[in-house]
Amino acid sequence: MGMKLGIIGYGGMGYWHGEYAPRAGVEVVAAYDVDPKRLEMAKDNGIEAYDNLDEFLKHDGMNFVVIATPNDVHKELTIKSMHAGMHVMVEKPATMSVTDWDDMVAESEKTGQILTVHQNRRWDKDYNVMRKVVEEGKIGEVLSIESRVFGTGGAFFGWRSFPEYGGGMILDWGVHLFDQLLGMYPDIKVTNVYAKLMTVLDQKVDDYFKVTLTLENGPLLHVEVGTYAFYKLPRWYVIGNEGTLQIDDFDCEKGGYMKPRYTDTPVAEVVVMTSAGPTRMMAPRPPETKEDFPLPEVETDWTELYQNLVGVMEGKEDLIVKPHQVRRVLELIEVIFQSAEEDRSIEVRI
Amino acid sequence: MGMKLGIIGYGGMGYWHGEYAPRAGVEVVAAYDVDPKRLEMAKDNGIEAYDNLDEFLKHDGMNFVVIATPNDVHKELTIKSMHAGMHVMVEKPATMSVTDWDDMVAESEKTGQILTVHQNRRWDKDYNVMRKVVEEGKIGEVLSIESRVFGTGGAFFGWRSFPEYGGGMILDWGVHLFDQLLGMYPDIKVTNVYAKLMTVLDQKVDDYFKVTLTLENGPLLHVEVGTYAFYKLPRWYVIGNEGTLQIDDFDCEKGGYMKPRYTDTPVAEVVVMTSAGPTRMMAPRPPETKEDFPLPEVETDWTELYQNLVGVMEGKEDLIVKPHQVRRVLELIEVIFQSAEEDRSIEVRI
Repeated sequence: MGMKLGIIGYGGMGYWHGEYAPRAGVEVVAAYDVDPKRLEMAKDNGIEAYDNLDEFLKHDGMNFVVIATPNDVHKELTIKSMHAGMHVMVEKPATMSVTDWDDMVAESEKTGQILTVHQNRRWDKDYNVMRKVVEEGKIGEVLSIESRVFGTGGAFFGWRSFPEYGGGMILDWGVHLFDQLLGMYPDIKVTNVYAKLMTVLDQKVDDYFKVTLTLENGPLLHVEVGTYAFYKLPRWYVIGNEGTLQIDDFDCEKGGYMKPRYTDTPVAEVVVMTSAGPTRMMAPRPPETKEDFPLPEVETDWTELYQNLVGVMEGKEDLIVKPHQVRRVLELIEVIFQSAEEDRSIEVRI
Repeated sequence: MGMKLGIIGYGGMGYWHGEYAPRAGVEVVAAYDVDPKRLEMAKDNGIEAYDNLDEFLKHDGMNFVVIATPNDVHKELTIKSMHAGMHVMVEKPATMSVTDWDDMVAESEKTGQILTVHQNRRWDKDYNVMRKVVEEGKIGEVLSIESRVFGTGGAFFGWRSFPEYGGGMILDWGVHLFDQLLGMYPDIKVTNVYAKLMTVLDQKVDDYFKVTLTLENGPLLHVEVGTYAFYKLPRWYVIGNEGTLQIDDFDCEKGGYMKPRYTDTPVAEVVVMTSAGPTRMMAPRPPETKEDFPLPEVETDWTELYQNLVGVMEGKEDLIVKPHQVRRVLELIEVIFQSAEEDRSIEVRI
């Protein structure tokens, strides 16, 4: 059985699905939008365009929809689509509350339709390179993982700047970055959440955040996104008890991991004068006492996500992006907003 | 009246005072230590050496001592020295509890002897450059200041690896970095403290920490020190609503601040494909829409600290490093240890 995809919301991400899903062998058959200009674009791309949702959902042969609308209508559109016999992949965030997600999952179980979320960043190269170095123990036991995404776009565009539509950076990039890190620790509980949300340029929603997650038995996790940061900090920075990992950017062209090389050279046996003043702990390490390793090569292919959905439709595969994983991220996000609002760390078991 | 300085504890920092105080016109006359090897070094440097504290304190003409011993004996030595008629500058941390500091200050008020702490990093170039950019509003209203010091020395040497002597990074570098930042906000209260202390290599004391301080009306402050971090993050990273400041290292040779330049060029009007995937907020900004500024020149001279002490002795100046400032940092440090121990953020008014 092939996937015949309909796109609900032919804006930025809807357009993207229309362009890229065919690379995974998916047939894109129809699009629904409220904006006539977007419908024109769909037609130009050979996709049948609908301004009426009910008619769109009756499109002949269509069996799967991707929902790429503002976040506040994800739930309603998901349930309506499943009732019309569609499998559903909804854009992230799946929805804006755990309760809503539970309702969506209940409807999926009732109707037997697939329900999943477009957590495509699980296939990002940088994430997989970091994960490989960490999981292969290249830098020993890991004590701290820092995940950062900085840009200079500043304030948001369109609906993303309104809290009622689910705007803000936690619900935009945060959802991806938390999904990536929680995916590394499926069986380890987050025990503590501390979040600082800021608005640098935007006045209504968070356009800069710093979140710290404590794991019951694992590294400290730091996730930070800035939309108006003119200098970049590394995408990944990981501290282990046998070395340090740094990945500068998404393309993994710069970065590596460095470890001590044990030699007879004493490391800062005496106080050394540096531009930082007299120090021993912070004195430069002689070059022969450290060793630099390149980042490993990792093959990633995001089309695996669509291929998985076809496999699930055919009953041959398990869903990669599972409802309980989505729920865990939404649970975390609710606590993040609570922590920021109450200005304190919050004890949890997520 | 000139300063005739005696040094209590002629180890790493005691030796440093012996070498550098003369640059401020100070006469170094005597040293006390329990280690015969250190006393030999003092003699070689033309300083009269004592292995008996009472005899040292009777050294003819000596009027000021600097105490550079393990932290656990700062209080006892300070009080004993003041009773012997000495003014006292104690190495940081002044002592290990607020109560102890209050006792030391009470003794200073009773005896009329000067009591101060060697917070020499107030004169560090990088700190003063950062402070100038921030206070002159070069990057607008500041929302976040991050202060980081990373080295690769790893585990501590000597007494610094024992909690009972006051070892660990909070009491070593932390004291300086908190003093620097609180110095920028003398009249603004710290309202929330969140601290994570880690031991990467050392087993007894913190050799890596991350501390977040919330101000009542000011930027979020982040202070981080790692002793086993093979890649450096910038010494300073500051986010303002009109730009970003970065200072790479103590010498201020690399860094600057960057601001938007308003032109007719639209900034990421549409979704752009990057190696990060489709994004608008994180899309690269066209070069003509940003402007890079060099770090300002700042003249700093740490000998001002000793010159100030001479001025205070002569009744001509007020103390720069004041007891109430020292007390504030110690108060903060007590809460930092509490936050880390209880694994939660703590509401304060410091």
